[in-house]
Amino acid sequence: MSKLDYTTLLKSDPLEGYEDPEKFKQWIPKIEKYRENLAKSILPEYSVELPKPIDELIEEQFNPLKYLYDEKLLTEKELAITDSSATDLVAKIAKGEYTSTEVLKAYAKRATIAHQFTNCALEIFIDEGLKRAEFLDEYYKKNGKTIGPLHGLPISLKEHMNYRGKITHAGYVGHLDNVAKDHGLTSQILEDLGAVFYVRTNQPQTLMHLDSNNNIIGLSKNPHNLLLSSGGSSSGEGSIVGFGGSALGVGSDIGGSIRGPAAFSGCIGLRPTSKRVSLSGGVSAGSGQESVPAVIGPFARSVEDIDLWMKHYINDGKPWVNDASTLPLLWRDVPKPAAKDLTVGVIYDDGFVKPTPPIQRALKEVVKKLEAAGVKVVEFKPPKIELAIQTIHKMYNCDGNYMQKKHLSASGEPLVKLTKWNLNYGEGSKDLTVAENRQLNIIRDDLKNEYTKYLNDNKIDFFISPTYNNVAPQSEGVYNWSYTALWNILDFPTLVVQTGIYQDPAVDKWDDGQKNYEYRNQTEQLEHEIYDPEKFKGAPVGIQISGRRYFDEDVVAAGKTIVEILGTDLFKQYQ
Amino acid sequence: MSKLDYTTLLKSDPLEGYEDPEKFKQWIPKIEKYRENLAKSILPEYSVELPKPIDELIEEQFNPLKYLYDEKLLTEKELAITDSSATDLVAKIAKGEYTSTEVLKAYAKRATIAHQFTNCALEIFIDEGLKRAEFLDEYYKKNGKTIGPLHGLPISLKEHMNYRGKITHAGYVGHLDNVAKDHGLTSQILEDLGAVFYVRTNQPQTLMHLDSNNNIIGLSKNPHNLLLSSGGSSSGEGSIVGFGGSALGVGSDIGGSIRGPAAFSGCIGLRPTSKRVSLSGGVSAGSGQESVPAVIGPFARSVEDIDLWMKHYINDGKPWVNDASTLPLLWRDVPKPAAKDLTVGVIYDDGFVKPTPPIQRALKEVVKKLEAAGVKVVEFKPPKIELAIQTIHKMYNCDGNYMQKKHLSASGEPLVKLTKWNLNYGEGSKDLTVAENRQLNIIRDDLKNEYTKYLNDNKIDFFISPTYNNVAPQSEGVYNWSYTALWNILDFPTLVVQTGIYQDPAVDKWDDGQKNYEYRNQTEQLEHEIYDPEKFKGAPVGIQISGRRYFDEDVVAAGKTIVEILGTDLFKQYQ
Repeated sequence: MSKLDYTTLLKSDPLEGYEDPEKFKQWIPKIEKYRENLAKSILPEYSVELPKPIDELIEEQFNPLKYLYDEKLLTEKELAITDSSATDLVAKIAKGEYTSTEVLKAYAKRATIAHQFTNCALEIFIDEGLKRAEFLDEYYKKNGKTIGPLHGLPISLKEHMNYRGKITHAGYVGHLDNVAKDHGLTSQILEDLGAVFYVRTNQPQTLMHLDSNNNIIGLSKNPHNLLLSSGGSSSGEGSIVGFGGSALGVGSDIGGSIRGPAAFSGCIGLRPTSKRVSLSGGVSAGSGQESVPAVIGPFARSVEDIDLWMKHYINDGKPWVNDASTLPLLWRDVPKPAAKDLTVGVIYDDGFVKPTPPIQRALKEVVKKLEAAGVKVVEFKPPKIELAIQTIHKMYNCDGNYMQKKHLSASGEPLVKLTKWNLNYGEGSKDLTVAENRQLNIIRDDLKNEYTKYLNDNKIDFFISPTYNNVAPQSEGVYNWSYTALWNILDFPTLVVQTGIYQDPAVDKWDDGQKNYEYRNQTEQLEHEIYDPEKFKGAPVGIQISGRRYFDEDVVAAGKTIVEILGTDLFKQYQ
Repeated sequence: MSKLDYTTLLKSDPLEGYEDPEKFKQWIPKIEKYRENLAKSILPEYSVELPKPIDELIEEQFNPLKYLYDEKLLTEKELAITDSSATDLVAKIAKGEYTSTEVLKAYAKRATIAHQFTNCALEIFIDEGLKRAEFLDEYYKKNGKTIGPLHGLPISLKEHMNYRGKITHAGYVGHLDNVAKDHGLTSQILEDLGAVFYVRTNQPQTLMHLDSNNNIIGLSKNPHNLLLSSGGSSSGEGSIVGFGGSALGVGSDIGGSIRGPAAFSGCIGLRPTSKRVSLSGGVSAGSGQESVPAVIGPFARSVEDIDLWMKHYINDGKPWVNDASTLPLLWRDVPKPAAKDLTVGVIYDDGFVKPTPPIQRALKEVVKKLEAAGVKVVEFKPPKIELAIQTIHKMYNCDGNYMQKKHLSASGEPLVKLTKWNLNYGEGSKDLTVAENRQLNIIRDDLKNEYTKYLNDNKIDFFISPTYNNVAPQSEGVYNWSYTALWNILDFPTLVVQTGIYQDPAVDKWDDGQKNYEYRNQTEQLEHEIYDPEKFKGAPVGIQISGRRYFDEDVVAAGKTIVEILGTDLFKQYQ
């Protein structure tokens, strides 16, 4: 079989009417100005000298996170602060052991270094963060108590959420003039609970890549291997939280956009069930689209911190008071289940794209550990996977890409590679009728019930699955969303945790059987051809844990048990 | 201004392709057979002799509910049973004071009489109900306890919900062959909780009238005045629960279909917030349509009974276990608020169609009583009412009536008057694009937040509004949905309660100002021209109480306080 080129998979027709080089010229100065501001925001007191020019580091698959520890780029105290869990950090600030200011400064340094290596930030505004931290310290001193349960916590924000007084472009050049009047509701709630903001993070053009490329600042890189992507679309969140540059992060997910970056970049992320976290106030092409609900959710380095974010955001933040589209479903305290009480269904291969060797190895290892701990494990072959993937792809684009076209053609900017890929999802630029859209919704709801029935009939508590058929992809080399998007069409809450396993070129080779492997579809061929063991060195493997709709708390609780069994402590990597 | 005829408001084009007299001929025998079966199910031991031919009773605006009491059509015990609240009834059955069998027999009689007068039932199956009641009595005897919290409760069901082994047609002739394999999930849950089924009730062709006409059994009548409609689309539920022919009922609502019949027929109904009650298993043209969520909800004669239904259905029935589209949001126990702690916003006139005199009088009376009790009352003028109504109308039909056409053209049946009206809602049979549909969703969500903000900013707890600009309409004479549909587009939980006020031809005349009244739109003109005080004798006035999305419990709790203040006891009407 001849090698596939992604371009052969793209139709050219639907991509007409987007790009306009003449129009785009007018936007170039705005891009330059934006980049200039970003460069200026890398302050000397928080930055480091790179060991080599960045292109060389990329070439040699440099691991900046390991470098941080090896070269002691942070002081002992900075390290203690930035390698505390968010849960510990708020407790220590509340007890007066740390000030908000010293916490922010430590994170400002680690975030700046993260950005220097990975290009994760779209905006860094440490001075504003410091003012806020000082205000919080004043408040604490005066009142003898914190302003809220997240008092002093440095939180990074995916950029497409509105931020008061700042440009909000969502990766579209045509929005470089769009200055938001107010914070999006979710950012506002986090701020009201005590968060400190100082960085907004990168995302791809259209927000619809499992990667990060855009015409504004370009690609973000993986904190474990600079040749690789940090994932997408919450690309910068993956990089910065994976690197330890923020205590908690905020991303969004409609096909894998929290889970991809979390898995690839070596951190933890939750795609909550829809309507638990408010989407109010932000830029996206998905407004009014409700067939596949987009969600906002947290990034962290421990499952406990995901709990912290969700519990306070929901129970104290009460987003439904101001956003009637959000549910008043309180976050329940669910105790960590005992291993012996857990039954999980494991997806080894979803039937659409077979996982690459490191993923196969990690799954086997995970299952071995789970079984040894007393967890009951059964294999789960997800039914109707092609229907699910075809349906969600059609749903994304069933407005004939009307809204994407509107956002993109505003500047006439060039379409980056994966934008072409995703604009051709489903039926591409063909307008579906509302009647057809309704039929897709019926398929979706039937799938939800079929998967739920499987859980009921087989007494399965959770599903465990790869996050992607591969580890972190090379930049702009990620095509298949089947492992993540399945949970989007089902709207099942899904937590990504780290296995503690990293790709190893010496071990993770295709076995001999692969030579005679018959590709089940072109996407599988494309994905498999990309996997060269030498090119993915040290990429972490994250897996997904999925549960019933709206039982996010139970998924998170199970996540704690599973992480404990796996023994992965992200605050102690490379140490 | 010349009088309006509804036909002038209809375009004829979009109605092509539905009717096919030749095809319809084949269905006539099935309709006849269906009617025959219905006639046969009126058993002598449960029925009465009508005082006059039904047409004469209609003509003279006969009140069959008053007649039931005046003529003592029920024994004292039958009356005691059927005028108990469902809450009392289950308590008495649980204590062994009543058997399920005697309860069912009493309701069978009252339901049969209800049907003889109002044509409320599509199917009556008392024998099956008796078998079930006997089984429950056996169970109780053997186990010394009830099978569930609704043990022995006779519940009526709107027909479009699937019923195991029975035809389910939803008012479409073309579905007269459609025998459901299983109960719809909601009926199944109620049965599992102990309910006894014995009657399925009438609904209009398309399920999209605030009335009941169809080609299968025709119109249902109002239990307070046979000239009038019981409302729709849960038409039979209005008649039967209003007449006391079932202890609780189950209807559905996408534009007023629970609240219209409840208000018009003199009972109580709740349109819950979406996704609290499962829609799984039934016939409707709205499948896959999620811009305006359809809901299923309870009918009752006391607010406490609404609480009973919702609490046990949700907390014990757990619909989300089998239907992943339903929310695991437990029903909270909310104490009845004190009058002095309540602030309500009252809509006297929604700005689209001014209410008729009986509604105006009732609202004034209600406000007087509420204020006297200590409730704070402010006037609320609903913002953007025309936008809200236009938007919801477009949403209903934005599939270009594809699904309605499919259901209707299956038999080629004639379109009844109000079907023509609703098929022309919005943009009629014009296909909207998915992009346009998404824009409507954005408008909807903005409206939700605007109304929610009003509640926040003005510290309003609930809205009170007319259910319709008039009392129960004459059959096929109800055009305006603005008062009910507003709460559908907002998805605010809305309870209809009775004011205890009935239309009085002597009092409820247009005042002199009406002569010079300038109609704000054609719908208003049409609705006002219909109101002849002499033709609506004794129609009850029900009002709506609406609250925040998902705060159904609070709306129901406030409903108890308000009903107490108004002093309406539906178990004691005409006694």
